Amino acid sequence: MSVRFTGFETYDVRFPTSRERDGSDAMNPDPDYSAAYVILRTDDPAGHAGHGFAFTIGRGNDVQVAGIAALAPYVVGRTVAEVCDDMGGFFGLLTHDSQLRWLGPEKGVMQMAVAAVVNAAWDLAAKRAGLPLWKLLADLSPEAIVALVDFRYLSDALTPDEALDILRRNAGTRAQRETEIRATGFPAYTTSAGWLGYDDEKIRARVRSALADGFDHIKLKVGKDLEDDVRRCRIARSEMGAGPKLMVDANQTWDRDSAIAAIRRLAEFDLFWVEEPTSPDDVLAHAAIAHAVAPIKVATGEHAANRVTFKQLLQARAIGFAQIDAVRSGGVNDTIATMLLAAKFGVPVCPHAGGVGLCELVQHLAIFDYIAIGANLENRVLEFVDHLHEHFVDPVRVERAHYQVPLGPGFSSAMHAESIAAYTFPGGPAWREVSSPPLVGATAHATAAS
Amino acid sequence: MSVRFTGFETYDVRFPTSRERDGSDAMNPDPDYSAAYVILRTDDPAGHAGHGFAFTIGRGNDVQVAGIAALAPYVVGRTVAEVCDDMGGFFGLLTHDSQLRWLGPEKGVMQMAVAAVVNAAWDLAAKRAGLPLWKLLADLSPEAIVALVDFRYLSDALTPDEALDILRRNAGTRAQRETEIRATGFPAYTTSAGWLGYDDEKIRARVRSALADGFDHIKLKVGKDLEDDVRRCRIARSEMGAGPKLMVDANQTWDRDSAIAAIRRLAEFDLFWVEEPTSPDDVLAHAAIAHAVAPIKVATGEHAANRVTFKQLLQARAIGFAQIDAVRSGGVNDTIATMLLAAKFGVPVCPHAGGVGLCELVQHLAIFDYIAIGANLENRVLEFVDHLHEHFVDPVRVERAHYQVPLGPGFSSAMHAESIAAYTFPGGPAWREVSSPPLVGATAHATAAS
Repeated sequence: MSVRFTGFETYDVRFPTSRERDGSDAMNPDPDYSAAYVILRTDDPAGHAGHGFAFTIGRGNDVQVAGIAALAPYVVGRTVAEVCDDMGGFFGLLTHDSQLRWLGPEKGVMQMAVAAVVNAAWDLAAKRAGLPLWKLLADLSPEAIVALVDFRYLSDALTPDEALDILRRNAGTRAQRETEIRATGFPAYTTSAGWLGYDDEKIRARVRSALADGFDHIKLKVGKDLEDDVRRCRIARSEMGAGPKLMVDANQTWDRDSAIAAIRRLAEFDLFWVEEPTSPDDVLAHAAIAHAVAPIKVATGEHAANRVTFKQLLQARAIGFAQIDAVRSGGVNDTIATMLLAAKFGVPVCPHAGGVGLCELVQHLAIFDYIAIGANLENRVLEFVDHLHEHFVDPVRVERAHYQVPLGPGFSSAMHAESIAAYTFPGGPAWREVSSPPLVGATAHATAAS
Repeated sequence: MSVRFTGFETYDVRFPTSRERDGSDAMNPDPDYSAAYVILRTDDPAGHAGHGFAFTIGRGNDVQVAGIAALAPYVVGRTVAEVCDDMGGFFGLLTHDSQLRWLGPEKGVMQMAVAAVVNAAWDLAAKRAGLPLWKLLADLSPEAIVALVDFRYLSDALTPDEALDILRRNAGTRAQRETEIRATGFPAYTTSAGWLGYDDEKIRARVRSALADGFDHIKLKVGKDLEDDVRRCRIARSEMGAGPKLMVDANQTWDRDSAIAAIRRLAEFDLFWVEEPTSPDDVLAHAAIAHAVAPIKVATGEHAANRVTFKQLLQARAIGFAQIDAVRSGGVNDTIATMLLAAKFGVPVCPHAGGVGLCELVQHLAIFDYIAIGANLENRVLEFVDHLHEHFVDPVRVERAHYQVPLGPGFSSAMHAESIAAYTFPGGPAWREVSSPPLVGATAHATAAS
């Protein structure tokens, strides 16, 4: 008998992070980092299950769970082989359901739901292969990688043949890069020094600590008050000296012209990039900002809805860094499309991480990109936030500011069952202790489809 | 005592329209037209309630209901006055919840949820005033209209002062246009002639019937097979003769270059517009298509996520018609932003309708646009699909191809209680009779928040 998917469990997991202002920025003053979590159960005698999640910041995590649950009928009852051996087809099946598509298309809650389920299937595929996900992907042929990508709406920027060319060009030297990255790890930068809710002395102490830990790329949150931003950048730069790179992240708070004015004001601090200066949908404004503030480069992508948004940002020369996200834009498959587009346009991929489990996921994608697609470490850094990793079965290991290559089978996406139970909202013990619950009293949601 | 919101009821209402292939197009072969429906209850002695909905096409309507339900805490317990007397503030409150915002931002399920709730509040506001919504809006001062708009991310294209200028320029002649539109009605076009699932003879008969009913704008679905499209356009044009306008709608099926090639092939049929040629997110591709196929004009907007997408389409000269939707992009408030942008750029607004109740809603917006913003009927036509109107308390009245101005108080958004009960999914009697249920077995969801 073929191994089949037998269950589709969802969980509303939330961490009360807003109490410490960790993760605070100009747009998100009090996030409760959350995971709309899914487990794909199988009748595999080895007990393999696929774990995935969408990341949210609190209220609405129940809506995200409902979005994921709507995809259960595409999983339960199917054989594991028909899904895991044709992940391009599986992605297309979820993305192009003609009725569900109306809820996006390919954006927002349903796009993140697709990402969660696709990534869970990838976790299972890697466990079946006994490999970390990055290695499973890095061992695929150029043709097999191209088959993972949905080229709809991409043909004006990237054809399957061009994608094949990129992959074949790098195929002969993959082993060399794999050996190197196993030895050195992937370079990380830290965002933990400069959350917007931190006071000046906390920033100063955190910057010192980050430098002592070996980080030479440090990011600050900006965008609420320009004079505050200037003062905070001055503190960071005075601690850092001239060498290390300083990035700032405005989290979408500016309009086009206020972004240009603010970035010019902050230019004295020698910025490596300016992140999310304005609306993530605004390709034209990003292009105008990038043109106006050059040589400072614009970075964005954590809220880019899909590969079509990334395509346009690249076509318009609007970004100098493509910040892929593992769970926003359709999961592994859509992210590979973006990595191929970025390679075509010569733009480095610097993934977004932090949140809940985003570091765990995106390390696999960054390493795969380096081995098979981007093939370069110049100007590549992967975000690191030292937060909530203890809830994961196979947490990231960052040493001397480098992600150490994950070696366990899977996508590092599995959370401890105890953490899921403790932080299930609103019934878990961690939430019963909270005196001031969040505004919206949503209900926990755990279904086992049959 | 102030009148307060006392309840927030949601309903998963679905109509099994896929059985007749009504509504079928190249992207949506078998829609089950559905409404994620919300009723805002109050303790008003007059019994006023606000009705609103998001339109979906079947599977996932339960996800949309969950998105709407997540907004209940922003309504229940508030006074009706604090919401209805500051609808700009209410829209901002729903749109900028810092945690819910992560699920978009301003796109997909949560954006449509905001639209449903905002529109329900507008329905209530109009009922309190004893006016149809279009009249409530058309009687507002230019300053009050500008206060409804969220100008975030718009300042590079439209400032509040520019919006005021547009509104003041037309303020003195509003009464004249109101008198005129009450007499003539608003011009309609029909989509009912050319659903993709119809065979040639059905198209021919429907086109004849539409012409006999007085329609001089007729739209066909295209995009699945170009030779089929040519044949169907030839049938329609041969029935129509040279005078009436023919539009085609590809429902996002083409990539940039295939769109250009297909539109050039169809140009011989003298197209008034080509609708949704490619991804609704692809501003740059729309601009390239518009440039390549001129003087044929591109129309899009029913899937434009928000005012930022419309802004870019206008800035890039990518559209010749702005197809606002009443429930996709943030409801009345965000749509007013788009109508002001369209007026600034001199592009006619031709709303998307059809679906469930979209005709009922958008007639109010088109009439308001004509009276206060666009102030012109040239090249303005409002979509009409003669479908499902019998489920509404105050259905549209289209006579001789013109929407007759609605006169009842409210937004014409209320569905008959009997229809809601009959078509609630999956428990309603209309669904219990269906032999082949849709793929996803979602659960009905009706909550009364307290």
